[in-house]
Amino acid sequence: MDYLLNLEIYQIKSFMEFSFSYAHIIRVRYSETDRMGYCYYGNYAQYLEVGRVEAIRRLGFVYKELENMGILLPVSTLNIRYKHPAFYDDELIIHTAIEKIEGARIFFSYRIECQEKLIAEADTILVFVDKNINKPIACPDFFLEKLRTYEK
Amino acid sequence: MDYLLNLEIYQIKSFMEFSFSYAHIIRVRYSETDRMGYCYYGNYAQYLEVGRVEAIRRLGFVYKELENMGILLPVSTLNIRYKHPAFYDDELIIHTAIEKIEGARIFFSYRIECQEKLIAEADTILVFVDKNINKPIACPDFFLEKLRTYEK
Amino acid sequence: MDYLLNLEIYQIKSFMEFSFSYAHIIRVRYSETDRMGYCYYGNYAQYLEVGRVEAIRRLGFVYKELENMGILLPVSTLNIRYKHPAFYDDELIIHTAIEKIEGARIFFSYRIECQEKLIAEADTILVFVDKNINKPIACPDFFLEKLRTYEK
Amino acid sequence: MDYLLNLEIYQIKSFMEFSFSYAHIIRVRYSETDRMGYCYYGNYAQYLEVGRVEAIRRLGFVYKELENMGILLPVSTLNIRYKHPAFYDDELIIHTAIEKIEGARIFFSYRIECQEKLIAEADTILVFVDKNINKPIACPDFFLEKLRTYEK
Repeated sequence: MDYLLNLEIYQIKSFMEFSFSYAHIIRVRYSETDRMGYCYYGNYAQYLEVGRVEAIRRLGFVYKELENMGILLPVSTLNIRYKHPAFYDDELIIHTAIEKIEGARIFFSYRIECQEKLIAEADTILVFVDKNINKPIACPDFFLEKLRTYEK
Repeated sequence: MDYLLNLEIYQIKSFMEFSFSYAHIIRVRYSETDRMGYCYYGNYAQYLEVGRVEAIRRLGFVYKELENMGILLPVSTLNIRYKHPAFYDDELIIHTAIEKIEGARIFFSYRIECQEKLIAEADTILVFVDKNINKPIACPDFFLEKLRTYEK
Repeated sequence: MDYLLNLEIYQIKSFMEFSFSYAHIIRVRYSETDRMGYCYYGNYAQYLEVGRVEAIRRLGFVYKELENMGILLPVSTLNIRYKHPAFYDDELIIHTAIEKIEGARIFFSYRIECQEKLIAEADTILVFVDKNINKPIACPDFFLEKLRTYEK
Repeated sequence: MDYLLNLEIYQIKSFMEFSFSYAHIIRVRYSETDRMGYCYYGNYAQYLEVGRVEAIRRLGFVYKELENMGILLPVSTLNIRYKHPAFYDDELIIHTAIEKIEGARIFFSYRIECQEKLIAEADTILVFVDKNINKPIACPDFFLEKLRTYEK
């Protein structure tokens, strides 16, 4: 179960950079605010996940189906820089870009905006994991094939 | 409201490094698991906040009272490296360290462990903000004074 | 601060029943699933709130603006009957109906459906509260006036 | 998958009333507050779940192990009456009582208090479900046996 630790020992089977991005809008829910009146900083991880899932859907893949095929995509790294607070009922645009794939790892970057104001920037690394053997695997060919259209 | 952006322009009024840390235990709730069976990656931000609040309480300060005094501490940067998944009902030890204070910014680092296994490492930067003028301020003297005991 | 307890002592200034309802769609997020693979039962309260807010928006009111005017609407009663589990990525239709207003209280009922399957039924009672005096107040006239169109 | 609907058709194999209750303390997290400054009403479902799990642990059972044995306990009914708001950093006592078992159903009731003030009352009905056949089952004998000590 130490697949999140020792990725460097896995042979890199692929390296590709992309210019694919997708914008998805979500509205800040009351439950997502805190007593400061801001959108709680911890909720952004959820928003990024929604951004990722919708970006992948745009590519023609349903994340749920990937999981049902036995491919998990746990997050190994999350970085967020908060620039301006977001507030209740704000409509946020989540710009999600697939930056590159390197072996078992896929790199996303994000910009969250509200009426052209930058709310936050973020990036994540996720790892393709085979559910059955519980180990990292190279990005599936059908996924790479689709992304090839957007190769830099 | 652009205080999270331009911190570099604020005059640094203090720079101190510390060796203070505090361990707090939380148990993973059912609501915090996801369909992968893991503790959802977004919940760690909450855990870090609990770690911070309890570390500050250990120093003799109640975060709520700081807010009531008009001092807010929004998060400007969050970084998490996920090492091993945590599961439902796991007891997690959140080790929270105050690393340094640099002007309006306070740097925390964290290690989350479960039965001596490293679950995640993280660090955050928070900013002292005056609620009334909505601008960054230097770390309050009474806070610095207390931390001085732990200066490196 | 005991306004949620003793509502029966407040003079009923209005009693009206309505036939207004509104349907809003949300998609179950990964963060909202649990290790059973279901949408966690506690998340429905959030969905009902989104349903309420969108129903009110449909009437021409923005809940946020009501709050900014000093009118709070805390929930005093929540009842949910779970009929079928909802799953990750399901699109749920939240049917929100405003049933009646009785003095300071407004009664909502809800049906959550997924592809014509009933997921849950719910009802809530909320209380109009004046933020400044922290006491229940009768439903504001401008709100009643709008709802009058839908009176039974 | 309609086990949550038609429980009345299942033969009642057991009916017992109990006087067992357990008190567990949780502290309201920052993430659990909302812009009204209250503990968000939707979080109480989580607190009740923590109360249940700790009450069951007190009886000598680990809910996680029940699940690993193939016994699920989804919630079929949730009712909450909110009496007073709870605030950030409040220590809440969750009193959880097992009221009765009736066939496949187990009835819990709850009182949430903060410094002797009643915050909320609640009750839930959960259903024993066999994970493999996905149908309600009678409460397992080893569980009933333990509860017998507390029979009214």
